Amino acid sequence: MKPIQVGLLGIGTVGGGVFTVLERNQDEITRRAGRGIRINTVADLNVERAKELVKDRAQVVSDARAVINNPEIDIVVELIGGYGIAKDLVLEAIAAGKHVVTANKALIAVHGNEIFKAAHEKGVMVAFEAAVAGGIPIIKALREGLTANRIEWIAGIINGTTNFILSEMRDKGLDFATVLKEAQRLGYAEADPTFDIEGVDAAHKATIMSAIAFGIPMQFEKAHVEGITKLDAIDIKYAEQLGYRIKLLGIAKKTATGVELRVHPTLIPTKRLIANVEGAMNAVQVFGDAVGTTLYYGKGAGSEPTASAVIADLVDITRLLGASPESRVPYLAFQPDAVRDITVLPMGEITTSYYLRLRVADQAGVLADITKILAAHSISIDALLQKEADEGESQTDLVALTHETKEKHMLAAIQEIQNLKTVAGEVVKIRLENLS
Amino acid sequence: MKPIQVGLLGIGTVGGGVFTVLERNQDEITRRAGRGIRINTVADLNVERAKELVKDRAQVVSDARAVINNPEIDIVVELIGGYGIAKDLVLEAIAAGKHVVTANKALIAVHGNEIFKAAHEKGVMVAFEAAVAGGIPIIKALREGLTANRIEWIAGIINGTTNFILSEMRDKGLDFATVLKEAQRLGYAEADPTFDIEGVDAAHKATIMSAIAFGIPMQFEKAHVEGITKLDAIDIKYAEQLGYRIKLLGIAKKTATGVELRVHPTLIPTKRLIANVEGAMNAVQVFGDAVGTTLYYGKGAGSEPTASAVIADLVDITRLLGASPESRVPYLAFQPDAVRDITVLPMGEITTSYYLRLRVADQAGVLADITKILAAHSISIDALLQKEADEGESQTDLVALTHETKEKHMLAAIQEIQNLKTVAGEVVKIRLENLS
Repeated sequence: MKPIQVGLLGIGTVGGGVFTVLERNQDEITRRAGRGIRINTVADLNVERAKELVKDRAQVVSDARAVINNPEIDIVVELIGGYGIAKDLVLEAIAAGKHVVTANKALIAVHGNEIFKAAHEKGVMVAFEAAVAGGIPIIKALREGLTANRIEWIAGIINGTTNFILSEMRDKGLDFATVLKEAQRLGYAEADPTFDIEGVDAAHKATIMSAIAFGIPMQFEKAHVEGITKLDAIDIKYAEQLGYRIKLLGIAKKTATGVELRVHPTLIPTKRLIANVEGAMNAVQVFGDAVGTTLYYGKGAGSEPTASAVIADLVDITRLLGASPESRVPYLAFQPDAVRDITVLPMGEITTSYYLRLRVADQAGVLADITKILAAHSISIDALLQKEADEGESQTDLVALTHETKEKHMLAAIQEIQNLKTVAGEVVKIRLENLS
Repeated sequence: MKPIQVGLLGIGTVGGGVFTVLERNQDEITRRAGRGIRINTVADLNVERAKELVKDRAQVVSDARAVINNPEIDIVVELIGGYGIAKDLVLEAIAAGKHVVTANKALIAVHGNEIFKAAHEKGVMVAFEAAVAGGIPIIKALREGLTANRIEWIAGIINGTTNFILSEMRDKGLDFATVLKEAQRLGYAEADPTFDIEGVDAAHKATIMSAIAFGIPMQFEKAHVEGITKLDAIDIKYAEQLGYRIKLLGIAKKTATGVELRVHPTLIPTKRLIANVEGAMNAVQVFGDAVGTTLYYGKGAGSEPTASAVIADLVDITRLLGASPESRVPYLAFQPDAVRDITVLPMGEITTSYYLRLRVADQAGVLADITKILAAHSISIDALLQKEADEGESQTDLVALTHETKEKHMLAAIQEIQNLKTVAGEVVKIRLENLS
């Protein structure tokens, strides 16, 4: 049988990986897919570099539209990234009747609803395994592996840069700025690391997983996005003393009143497997009502790990080319007409536990005042860590872990605590998830 | 659209879970599958108990063949277990043109080749996600998620009973027999635990994974099967001191000369994520040449976790009912005509590292004699742990970790070491895998 013809838009890090792996493993891939998968044409603005990479084994063009409009090509792989030209090209490819594979999380999280609608109308497949957690087949697990379940929550370490930074901060006791520089030097963080360290990248991925898990549209604009730039090394240390580790988690949770969709630093018990995911590795923990906890771990970025996910999508599409749309897995796991518009809750309405750190006067009655305020807001304390004041100091650190409460109650309590004369500086609040 | 009609053979623990979860989550499942999935008939020898369970929501019969020959039924789910009647019924169901879902690892590992051949000729699907690692979608990850990769090795904690026992032995410093009794009392081990503690169950699952990962036939009869019954608590303690944990691993590895397929207690570095999988939980680590290390974790047994896998298979089959066989994922990940008969290596030919414990005379020159023998067999030592002899004792424990070598060389070396006058008792040998 004639090999499936693929057009590649962009041959940077990931595109190069796709090209290399398809060639190196063509025997295994063909034995699995039932027919060959061949890169027919590569479109890249840097034609010279692209030609050097692919040699004479594929055509190289500078114009992406030459790929999209090439009648020989069955599947277009978009590896340009970003929301701009990538969106236009994906929509044009769909309009031209091409199936599409993309690794572009920003595009799917922000414009996914429009893209899937267009693809559904045109009857083409759009696959995006590489958009979340790189080489880990988490989209497949959520869309197909856990179909029996009501998925209750997902919590993921889905940004390698920030996990590397947090691991280093804890290991070496260094502060954020120092470790960020080190990460940039080692290539774990980009020159402009904003999307990573501010949590935007993780929020894109959490948005995509929330849609697939709960059968809701993409609602990136409603996600709470909070990065790790304000995290203090001392809180990592105190958390450790209390048996917790701080990770940047992407969280999607379904509650009786709506969906929680949030990215923020989070204390998790050290004994949980996911707390021990170190360095640039990714992991996603999924809780389904039938299966209980499952966890998926692997490399979340990089040339060949991401290519692994892109090619898995190519194989899936290759198999289903001749089948009718009903035989395909729905884009968002749920049939298009079964997607329901469930509210993403504002942050005041989310329920979680908290780590609080306060700078307090080292005198009698301080703790009583604070616990009284928390109690008045129905917030109960799970654990306390009170340091002896250092020699000659009149203030000391007080750390409290609370049980679950609504965020709005916690914010109200913190405001009152902040007004106490015995409390100095700002109250540090970090959310805590038990993940059991 | 009319719901898919399912016939259930056996409604014990897993069957009950399938029934319960299908009913409880029917809304979500239908929204995903595009049509309802309904248990039409349940066959169970204990008709009364089955009727009590399903009430009037499905027919109950005692004769499995009444399900197989029922023209209304599209998919037969075999949950009887074992190689006996289950094999006949699965082959009869296939002959009757039914698609089959099974959770029966023994059946697939031992008779899979025959079953898939029959299913291929008849053009029906046979799915078995629940046969390996319960609720973890590991079959899907291997068959579909990692299709881009040459899978190099798999190492799995795929038997919850033995992992529970090993966790307890380590935590509490107890010996095997004591913990086994406790495990039986708690329901983590069966009254006759032979298949679990002797490694047979893990070998079934490792066999299935080896076939899917490498595109080879099931070769259970060639698997090396070694359980945990002879494991001594002292070795768990020494391993811990050296930075390792002992787990019963199912290992499948592809080498230049063949396939390694083996189940045995294994030292793994404590810092590996999989070393921290405790209690009855399962985890499978897979190394692919493109993706690197990935890991899949969750409950490997139990009513609803296993039902989660069975129902995922039902949804997959439901989607593909109208499609031609080419659109399906091949039974063993590779197209039937692309499965290759690669040799499973005899144990003498496998390559691994070793933990050795020797009871030696507490005198000069002993260590030199031993290292000389190892060196003569080209085995180098990675780490040594030599205990001071206890007060009044003339012998002491010597523990050595070696670098990789062929098992036959190690056995030859051990035989020579055993003959040394300064070595008492039997040399304890446990294999060690670095899993990086």
